[in-house]
Amino acid sequence: MSNPVFAVILSGCGHQDGAEIHESTLTLYAIHRHGADYHCFAPNILQHHVLNHITGAEMDDTRNVLIESARIARGNISDLADFTANEFDALILPGGFGAAKNLSDYAFQGADCQINPDVEKAVKTMHGAGKPIGALCISPALIARILPGVKLTIGSDQSTSDNIRVMGAQHIVAQETEIVVDTDNRVVTTPCYMLDSRVDKIAEGVDRTVAALLEMI
Amino acid sequence: MSNPVFAVILSGCGHQDGAEIHESTLTLYAIHRHGADYHCFAPNILQHHVLNHITGAEMDDTRNVLIESARIARGNISDLADFTANEFDALILPGGFGAAKNLSDYAFQGADCQINPDVEKAVKTMHGAGKPIGALCISPALIARILPGVKLTIGSDQSTSDNIRVMGAQHIVAQETEIVVDTDNRVVTTPCYMLDSRVDKIAEGVDRTVAALLEMI
Repeated sequence: MSNPVFAVILSGCGHQDGAEIHESTLTLYAIHRHGADYHCFAPNILQHHVLNHITGAEMDDTRNVLIESARIARGNISDLADFTANEFDALILPGGFGAAKNLSDYAFQGADCQINPDVEKAVKTMHGAGKPIGALCISPALIARILPGVKLTIGSDQSTSDNIRVMGAQHIVAQETEIVVDTDNRVVTTPCYMLDSRVDKIAEGVDRTVAALLEMI
Repeated sequence: MSNPVFAVILSGCGHQDGAEIHESTLTLYAIHRHGADYHCFAPNILQHHVLNHITGAEMDDTRNVLIESARIARGNISDLADFTANEFDALILPGGFGAAKNLSDYAFQGADCQINPDVEKAVKTMHGAGKPIGALCISPALIARILPGVKLTIGSDQSTSDNIRVMGAQHIVAQETEIVVDTDNRVVTTPCYMLDSRVDKIAEGVDRTVAALLEMI
């Protein structure tokens, strides 16, 4: 039997305007550490904007989500439009504002957000096939929009958990490194940098998420 | 007694034109995992170029090494010009082509390379103070140029190890996850992605490097 294979959806490269780099790297690490394999995907679209990660100021630059995500994936990445659920055993979405700005407009529309069609399709087809889905940091907000009634966590942020309830999902408060498992929907979530955390704690939460997903395969 | 503190020198964000993201993230992780702290630095200079990490083609874009490195450091980073050795217990340089293109011109000049003056000063002042220095992937080539006679590894690449010998250093062949320790110079090196490796093996080599540096403090 071959190793289980995870599809990893990235949203750029850098937590203010793309995928959170520690969460993304430690996701790839946890997958390999547990003897599974991965392939990365990202939508072939422009980033919402480009932010200077020191000042937070918007930069006069235009970047593509797929091309920037390739920095984390070391070039081994595909357009999310080419994703097919039958090639993968599990799906996982690291966090970072890219999930809320590039994979959706959650950062701007809150509970009324729209999800990138390829992200929505990937989540729905995996869910429909009974395959487990993991989401880190702010990414569970997207899952709440796509799979109404799902049980998940983004940590303890009041405004985000309120939005998640408005979208029809159930929010469970979780602490640093804790995971929330929705057994019926086969969804595993952990807060990561939605809490004031540090890289070793991120590794712990991500590792638990990946281990829980592997148990569901 | 407070925790030992590492200075981490980054060279951008993405292995083709900046710091290798997995090596950098796993360096920060290993430092925290071992109970130490870190602060990131990068030179406030333009990158040599910007490469599309899918195609390898040069992009019509200009990026700053400090600003891009801040993506890995989550904004908590300082200009390398402000580095002072007395604030730190150890220094570590992750790899990626940024080390050879931004922190030096090794990628273009080989054994005749010049090192960025702030990088050279950081390495020399730490070495002069008897504090340990770690270098991953291609970064040991810079250490070879700065500290003649040092014993180190970049794995087994013939051309790079030849250059290292030309620069007056001693190259030791090392396999995936192995470290080379120069006890006299207090320098620890490991090949990382200079070998055809994967993220869990990178974590192992980096963890050994950080552990060996901590033993020297």
